[in-house]
Amino acid sequence: MTDAPLRKPVITLTAGPVQGYSEVLQAMARPLGYDYDPWFLGFYEAVAKKCAQALRWPEPALIVQAEPAVAIEAAAASVIGRRDVVLNLASGVYGKGFGYWSARYHKEMVEIEVPYDEAIDPAAVAAALQARPDISVVSVVHHDTPSGTINPLVEIGEVVHAHGAVLIVDAVSSFGGMDIHPADCHADVFITGPGKCLGGTPGVTFVAVSDKAWQKMEANPDCPFASILSLKDWKNAWRRDQPFPFTPSVAEISGLDAAIDLYLEEGPQAVWARHALTAAACRAGIKALGCELWAAREAIASPTTTSVKVPEALSDDAIIEIARQRYGVMLSIGRGETLHKLIRIGHMGPTAEPVYALVAVAALGGALKALGFPAKLGAGLEAAQAVIDAARG
Amino acid sequence: MTDAPLRKPVITLTAGPVQGYSEVLQAMARPLGYDYDPWFLGFYEAVAKKCAQALRWPEPALIVQAEPAVAIEAAAASVIGRRDVVLNLASGVYGKGFGYWSARYHKEMVEIEVPYDEAIDPAAVAAALQARPDISVVSVVHHDTPSGTINPLVEIGEVVHAHGAVLIVDAVSSFGGMDIHPADCHADVFITGPGKCLGGTPGVTFVAVSDKAWQKMEANPDCPFASILSLKDWKNAWRRDQPFPFTPSVAEISGLDAAIDLYLEEGPQAVWARHALTAAACRAGIKALGCELWAAREAIASPTTTSVKVPEALSDDAIIEIARQRYGVMLSIGRGETLHKLIRIGHMGPTAEPVYALVAVAALGGALKALGFPAKLGAGLEAAQAVIDAARG
Amino acid sequence: MTDAPLRKPVITLTAGPVQGYSEVLQAMARPLGYDYDPWFLGFYEAVAKKCAQALRWPEPALIVQAEPAVAIEAAAASVIGRRDVVLNLASGVYGKGFGYWSARYHKEMVEIEVPYDEAIDPAAVAAALQARPDISVVSVVHHDTPSGTINPLVEIGEVVHAHGAVLIVDAVSSFGGMDIHPADCHADVFITGPGKCLGGTPGVTFVAVSDKAWQKMEANPDCPFASILSLKDWKNAWRRDQPFPFTPSVAEISGLDAAIDLYLEEGPQAVWARHALTAAACRAGIKALGCELWAAREAIASPTTTSVKVPEALSDDAIIEIARQRYGVMLSIGRGETLHKLIRIGHMGPTAEPVYALVAVAALGGALKALGFPAKLGAGLEAAQAVIDAARG
Amino acid sequence: MTDAPLRKPVITLTAGPVQGYSEVLQAMARPLGYDYDPWFLGFYEAVAKKCAQALRWPEPALIVQAEPAVAIEAAAASVIGRRDVVLNLASGVYGKGFGYWSARYHKEMVEIEVPYDEAIDPAAVAAALQARPDISVVSVVHHDTPSGTINPLVEIGEVVHAHGAVLIVDAVSSFGGMDIHPADCHADVFITGPGKCLGGTPGVTFVAVSDKAWQKMEANPDCPFASILSLKDWKNAWRRDQPFPFTPSVAEISGLDAAIDLYLEEGPQAVWARHALTAAACRAGIKALGCELWAAREAIASPTTTSVKVPEALSDDAIIEIARQRYGVMLSIGRGETLHKLIRIGHMGPTAEPVYALVAVAALGGALKALGFPAKLGAGLEAAQAVIDAARG
Repeated sequence: MTDAPLRKPVITLTAGPVQGYSEVLQAMARPLGYDYDPWFLGFYEAVAKKCAQALRWPEPALIVQAEPAVAIEAAAASVIGRRDVVLNLASGVYGKGFGYWSARYHKEMVEIEVPYDEAIDPAAVAAALQARPDISVVSVVHHDTPSGTINPLVEIGEVVHAHGAVLIVDAVSSFGGMDIHPADCHADVFITGPGKCLGGTPGVTFVAVSDKAWQKMEANPDCPFASILSLKDWKNAWRRDQPFPFTPSVAEISGLDAAIDLYLEEGPQAVWARHALTAAACRAGIKALGCELWAAREAIASPTTTSVKVPEALSDDAIIEIARQRYGVMLSIGRGETLHKLIRIGHMGPTAEPVYALVAVAALGGALKALGFPAKLGAGLEAAQAVIDAARG
Repeated sequence: MTDAPLRKPVITLTAGPVQGYSEVLQAMARPLGYDYDPWFLGFYEAVAKKCAQALRWPEPALIVQAEPAVAIEAAAASVIGRRDVVLNLASGVYGKGFGYWSARYHKEMVEIEVPYDEAIDPAAVAAALQARPDISVVSVVHHDTPSGTINPLVEIGEVVHAHGAVLIVDAVSSFGGMDIHPADCHADVFITGPGKCLGGTPGVTFVAVSDKAWQKMEANPDCPFASILSLKDWKNAWRRDQPFPFTPSVAEISGLDAAIDLYLEEGPQAVWARHALTAAACRAGIKALGCELWAAREAIASPTTTSVKVPEALSDDAIIEIARQRYGVMLSIGRGETLHKLIRIGHMGPTAEPVYALVAVAALGGALKALGFPAKLGAGLEAAQAVIDAARG
Repeated sequence: MTDAPLRKPVITLTAGPVQGYSEVLQAMARPLGYDYDPWFLGFYEAVAKKCAQALRWPEPALIVQAEPAVAIEAAAASVIGRRDVVLNLASGVYGKGFGYWSARYHKEMVEIEVPYDEAIDPAAVAAALQARPDISVVSVVHHDTPSGTINPLVEIGEVVHAHGAVLIVDAVSSFGGMDIHPADCHADVFITGPGKCLGGTPGVTFVAVSDKAWQKMEANPDCPFASILSLKDWKNAWRRDQPFPFTPSVAEISGLDAAIDLYLEEGPQAVWARHALTAAACRAGIKALGCELWAAREAIASPTTTSVKVPEALSDDAIIEIARQRYGVMLSIGRGETLHKLIRIGHMGPTAEPVYALVAVAALGGALKALGFPAKLGAGLEAAQAVIDAARG
Repeated sequence: MTDAPLRKPVITLTAGPVQGYSEVLQAMARPLGYDYDPWFLGFYEAVAKKCAQALRWPEPALIVQAEPAVAIEAAAASVIGRRDVVLNLASGVYGKGFGYWSARYHKEMVEIEVPYDEAIDPAAVAAALQARPDISVVSVVHHDTPSGTINPLVEIGEVVHAHGAVLIVDAVSSFGGMDIHPADCHADVFITGPGKCLGGTPGVTFVAVSDKAWQKMEANPDCPFASILSLKDWKNAWRRDQPFPFTPSVAEISGLDAAIDLYLEEGPQAVWARHALTAAACRAGIKALGCELWAAREAIASPTTTSVKVPEALSDDAIIEIARQRYGVMLSIGRGETLHKLIRIGHMGPTAEPVYALVAVAALGGALKALGFPAKLGAGLEAAQAVIDAARG
């Protein structure tokens, strides 16, 4: 156990990048399109519209040719100008992080921060907006992945909408795994990608942008152009009669195409349901093992990631190393403030299948036992399975 | 011919993105690695070292998780600071474009610009450096793809090295198709990617960075961090014991791995030879057709792209549309200043095969004839084939 | 040129196995189905029905889990019994070969044989059937691939139908590349596969079997069972509620699925048209080169393969070796009786594109010139292109 | 639960066809080789030699272009002639089945049959051979897959070798998953394929053939030729300077190539070890669930398949349907005589990973509970995991 394992994991149950659906992987092997070819131009337009269909958004999605963090940085750079007062909602590492990006561009930032096992209270948002009518941009992360917790986005969106600010939403690891769409939460910039709940690759992003947000960018004198940080550059790139400002990542577009197809063909309701069931089974198993969930309340535990407190005196690194070495199961540790405090089990895309809740409980339980923690393995597995049986019996 | 063609092209002979090698496409279908998985960490390190081997560079390559233009923008942002005087060498659209990025960061820019069918004269570079001893950064594009012309990079590098400035080289569409490496030209930041001559995907980039360049970035107070524009963020990301600053594009890394393997296994000399032979055959065929090469002199015509002047009164769009519609062959038009002035035929990766010179001459010749230009089709093909036969007979 | 080339061919223009469509290749990478899995059972049934749709046949196709020659041997073994008098129509090596298989099972065989550059005359078939009313089975090859010639199958089928014999048709290398279906020719056993004109793999076969043929097999005391030579074993295997008699080649079924999808989506008429156009362009080019077509009359030259006489004193092996070595183009030689007498250029599936006629003429012409034959290369290419231009201009 | 499930299984733990390794699936997507192409000829030879290396056999393997049952039928047809007395060893459905094939060709058959949860006793073989010195061919199945039991092949081989008969071995579902090779057991025809323990596709077979067996075929007047049932036809097909008698299944050869590479690269010892550990964990879990193993003694339970008795009054179909529907786990039922009597869990290729023993126990246990059987789920899982922990702790 001193050497790093050299074999690939048998089963990857991480909080992303996740294992992809086989259909997505095969799509990645399609011949590469040339970005001025008329067939490719039509294909790209179709993918942008297909993303919009998944997002339930009236305009073709903006496709960003890099991973979602780039799109979030670009959103900050494009939307936030030197006269903006930003309300940043931080319930976790990613929410907190947006504030640092905002700081490069804004005039001033107001921040609501809650403990990282908690969720933002919409009433607090309303109060902050009332206190500062000059807040022009609000930023929120729906599922703060390093915590595995969900913010009440619909309610927050309602409040922001009433106020009139531009709302930037990071829905990277929630969209596709639960019932959330940009219009549901009045989002103006709603960022997500195929690399989490859609079982695709992490190297591309798609975004719903409202007219209000486009106007904000147009009016922002600091909005970048001719830059990877410019959302504006790509506004019309989906049109088959428009050239691309830079080279699109053609293979990633193929994978995105397949990921969206799978989502729409299976049916969003069905996809959300298996994410939810997998997470519910996992939480039941974890608790029956004798472990504690990280989320302060189960109601805010994500259906796409289950976070488990690291039992006292144990090492997160040791836990995942044993799960990997003995069972070939790869889990995630925390990140930033949550590092060393929790273990994360992803339920995303192809791993959002109840049987993987059993695998996760077995792997985690086995690793904990190996480290001396009295995990009730049999009880954990029976509890997880009982949730599945209740739903599918 | 009024409707855009709906079928995919049969043969793509563009100046990039190019068609990929089948081995690369299959590699894109590999299961997705998790970026904290120990196997993946080791794999990433191996790929970074393999890129270095191809680059003949002593340090693992810096892998940028986006297309090469992003890496070039990031190089400008990371290297150039408010006290820098930059010498920008512009022999084409891409060279000229670097100046715009530089302008965001530099104190002052000196520019040598030549007609876009010409190459930079190393003596002019020497003169400029002598005239302005305070020049601290020099930027040059090796193969300015929109022109299909090559700059004398080794000679330019020699001059810059003697001066002591940091040299930023865009070798995106030359590396892998001809004999050039960062050490050959004293480059400090040498940017290339698999999406051109290596027959890979366009969504990832690899870069050789010298110690001098790292020190320049360290000393640059304006150097970005926690940003897609920060080269520095990723400096140590190749180390298996270091976390990634952001999520790597895991599928692209698989494709890059395969592309470099192919290059090293076939042998760089052999790869360069078939690029050179294909281009030579193509040029011979184009001239015998009765067309003119774009490059002022054949000596500066790229072995990876052949640019052909659009015959007077003809439309570049019409030419490529007919080649696409009748023969299924996709060619490139120009870009920016060279738009409407030339047609480009790529010889990159899997299309750097002499038989494709015949295909290109046939498709271009047929399209020109259809538009009334008296292309000598038979003569063109015989001339191209004669070059192949002379080399391989 | 003394060593065998070690690199893969650049372009394969053979008479089969052909290069596959990329969609088929990607389908081959699908996860393997388990043959008792309910999803797989439904998938298999769907593929059998899809094949029937392509065949325009009312019953699901019989899928044989091996290459077409196995299905042909099995048809002989299953249909022909010790009391059968077989009329074998031999216009080429494959037609002749069926007689050897027939001989294992039949009581007697009548054979009509014509020179291998000729086609069977339906009137001769009618005469033979009239002379021998006891003929109970007739066998014919539609496209005798080693010759590249087509028999008048519809007319032959009419005559056989009037007589009442069971008609066994080898349509392996014609179906999908031209307008022929089992009902068009009153076939009782119509054998084809994806590995030729459908751009699929050669390791699987699909067959239309008439009720009359099934009854013949039922009544045949020598019909094999529990054997790869038994067509009967698999009669009901397509039904999702029936087990397979032996293990199906699950990956091949995936490839077949994709190949049929492509054929139906592009549209059979469109597919046949590009096969015909490619062949017509190729024949024009070959003749203008100064070569002779193998087929006695152009009317019987196959739209899926062009056979060219080897010019006197030249070696077929040398010709294809040079085409392979200089241009990376792989062509076919003859087989059996036609060996050393002809060179074959396949126009099948993805290579049934007019541009490949240009490639074939260039490669063949270049090779012939290298061997001293005065091929008029320019004229050949201009002639081939003129055919394309006339059709698509 | 009345409708057949429509989604693909999440995890396939069957006794073959098994899920393939991703590397094999990607290899299936390689461009199709042309069977006369010199590159392909060299590739095929290399694969035949690589198979021999895995088999530890001095001669290149014979590759049969269809699934293993075809090769077994062909072995019977090719080896057994009208003067042969065959000793058939039947410890299961497959062993028994060989007798039916033998009956088509032999003069007489002696059979040793044991209950299908038992193994053949080498002493009984010795006695039979002593009683009938005219026995010229002996046939045995190493792992009779429908029973999940292993015969003592090395000991049987010793006895047959002393006698001098030709020994035909079906090692289809044992080779690659445990320590057995043709020379270990004095096999003359040793048949296996990639579709079981090598994690490849089921549509191709490879065979070690001894000189003695080749001579037997040469001397057999009934040995088929020009037939899929002729092993002889393909004897020299591996030589790059020899044509193929029929078209090889080119895609299957690519998959075979990858499957053997994986086996050799991981190391046979390591591969066998994970098969054995997975099976041991599975058996422990099954017993702790409260179920009975099918095998009369654990010593003859296969390391590649665990067979479990169907508890009294339960339906095998119902069990696997529930496991499939609730957990997405596909298991195998029995076949022929073992149908309705057992459930089979495959440990083959990529599923020969201990974590899948946990999955199997959970899925089987859950299904049994759903049907009213008092499966001790927690105990089962703890027992299985304890075996893994003991081995890897």
